[in-house]
Amino acid sequence: MRIALDAMGGDNAPYEIVWGGALAAAQSKDTIILVGDEAAIRKAFRHKHPKIRPLPDVQGLMKAGRLTVVHTDESIAMDDAPAAAVRRKRNCSINVCMRMVKEGQADAAVSAGNSGAMAASALFILGRIKGVARPAIATVLPTKDAARPTLLLDAGANTDCHHEWLREFAVMGDTYSRLVLGREKPAVGLMSIGTEDCKGNELTKHAFPLLRDYTPGIDFKGNVEGHDVFEGKTDVIVCDGFVGNVILKTSESAAHAMGDWLKRVIKENTFFTLAAVPLLPALRKLKRHMDPEVYGGAPLLGVPGAVIITHGSSTHRAIVYACAAGSRAAEHNVSQEIAARIGSLPEVPLDDEPVAQATLETSAEKR
Amino acid sequence: MRIALDAMGGDNAPYEIVWGGALAAAQSKDTIILVGDEAAIRKAFRHKHPKIRPLPDVQGLMKAGRLTVVHTDESIAMDDAPAAAVRRKRNCSINVCMRMVKEGQADAAVSAGNSGAMAASALFILGRIKGVARPAIATVLPTKDAARPTLLLDAGANTDCHHEWLREFAVMGDTYSRLVLGREKPAVGLMSIGTEDCKGNELTKHAFPLLRDYTPGIDFKGNVEGHDVFEGKTDVIVCDGFVGNVILKTSESAAHAMGDWLKRVIKENTFFTLAAVPLLPALRKLKRHMDPEVYGGAPLLGVPGAVIITHGSSTHRAIVYACAAGSRAAEHNVSQEIAARIGSLPEVPLDDEPVAQATLETSAEKR
Repeated sequence: MRIALDAMGGDNAPYEIVWGGALAAAQSKDTIILVGDEAAIRKAFRHKHPKIRPLPDVQGLMKAGRLTVVHTDESIAMDDAPAAAVRRKRNCSINVCMRMVKEGQADAAVSAGNSGAMAASALFILGRIKGVARPAIATVLPTKDAARPTLLLDAGANTDCHHEWLREFAVMGDTYSRLVLGREKPAVGLMSIGTEDCKGNELTKHAFPLLRDYTPGIDFKGNVEGHDVFEGKTDVIVCDGFVGNVILKTSESAAHAMGDWLKRVIKENTFFTLAAVPLLPALRKLKRHMDPEVYGGAPLLGVPGAVIITHGSSTHRAIVYACAAGSRAAEHNVSQEIAARIGSLPEVPLDDEPVAQATLETSAEKR
Repeated sequence: MRIALDAMGGDNAPYEIVWGGALAAAQSKDTIILVGDEAAIRKAFRHKHPKIRPLPDVQGLMKAGRLTVVHTDESIAMDDAPAAAVRRKRNCSINVCMRMVKEGQADAAVSAGNSGAMAASALFILGRIKGVARPAIATVLPTKDAARPTLLLDAGANTDCHHEWLREFAVMGDTYSRLVLGREKPAVGLMSIGTEDCKGNELTKHAFPLLRDYTPGIDFKGNVEGHDVFEGKTDVIVCDGFVGNVILKTSESAAHAMGDWLKRVIKENTFFTLAAVPLLPALRKLKRHMDPEVYGGAPLLGVPGAVIITHGSSTHRAIVYACAAGSRAAEHNVSQEIAARIGSLPEVPLDDEPVAQATLETSAEKR
């Protein structure tokens, strides 16, 4: 697979990105196309990466055509207004990556840049899959079972959602879970605040019957709660992008806080500090289990093409995983499969029930 | 203070509840009024609690009038439809507690029962403070700094909120934070998915200017993100009850998962298991830091009276903390202070901007 990697996107661009790309090329069969300022890219390669052992043979990979550079001197800053910027800077690195996917010069686009710009550029250049109202960002979260991470979508592309969009999210998430995460029959849950059908807010109460009765081909398990996220109760969790983004950031925050507390109680007392030393390998293993970098970037589902968004703070490691995710998404034709399944979804009955604000009475009942 | 304690509410009722009440009476100056089936309560006291050392002198406390029983044989089951049940069972233990508060026979009501029933009963019997559209459940969450937990509201009473309600939540949370949690000038944050003013969903974007310009007396810090919850960036976090409940349950889930992973990596390997032994006190301390039971129950703010809702799985320890929270809330006249501050809030300008669904373009820009 040929991966168009945005060398200019992210807090650590281009250095971590280009070395991550070289490492990905060295470790896989994929061709990595570094898109960005050629001078900056070559400059970055002149400083050997201190943390990569063994260092990939950049010259060799380039000679072999496994690592190439496509030059563009426009790029988007983190503080640019994304949608406007991708229109104004037609040749910014993200747009070039998308255009390469559109024109078949690349099989997937990967960027650690502004995710809003990424989504806007994908829509601007690739458009959306017919029948998909809103593309969604899907994020892979660790669960108690390291071998079964769960897929959460939307993780932030759509802050206010119509309930019919959640049905599309379910189908897209189910497809990615099957094809890329290798689940045979992914369990799909609707994020809510109670497991009974009647519980939730107006959005989830309208989405529930659609997921239950009008979404053939998914194994809908009903509502899930915050409790169930890391329990891994389901393989796919659908919610609006506001809730999904809050879940993502809150759980990162909780994990960090626990790590800090553990460090503090251990450091408070020299005896504990010494006692902890032999446990360091175990603690490192725990850290790795929770490390978002190993979960391989977040696919933007619903656009015709494999697009992977990875964290702005991505290091070379995250880039390797993100390139692998892009390669798998392209290899398994995720977007073609989504197009086929969305196209065959049954008509949704007209829903004239007003999405009214709940009175306290009823919202009390919901709990 | 006189605390009306619902002896029949919660998974461990009446045993853990009544022993918790006895312990609260023994450890404080408060009078605990156990409301429930007298026979069941007396029976529970006949079996000494194995985990409480020293065991409170129940007979002595009863003789001294510091621990009393008010009999009622109606109670609400976890699976009753709350609002309906509190109307049907006029003398259920929760209703009796509320009536005692209303009639001045108790200063606070505490229950580990169905929180929906609790909220419904409070509204049914106490009503709401003039000017408060919707009472909210406020939950105290631990932060990195054990001495500065943060207050999150609404934690689940109102799943779909109007943006003006969030202004009331901010004032109520600020008041509770000052009077009960002892913050001099609580920092108040609006839960969103980006710190810039423009970020969030339709609800937060409409609430933001109200909190900034029409809520005198609060120290509004703007938007906070999931990242900031356990960082303790603000002392009060306002959000709708759906998002608040998701935050609450997701963070519990993340903490549990981390605990399990830590256990697993340590148990995988005998050497680690042995090495961990001397660290057990430190790990216990960490567990205690995150233990929701010590954060003292969740006040239902916006009703005229001190009402504390505590977790359905509460043990005697949680009951002691919840009774103390009820006592503090009553002692500091939280609801009177809320009434005064809500009454003096400025008029909100007519807001004719439609709360429309965001297009992907704009929602992409938001990110």
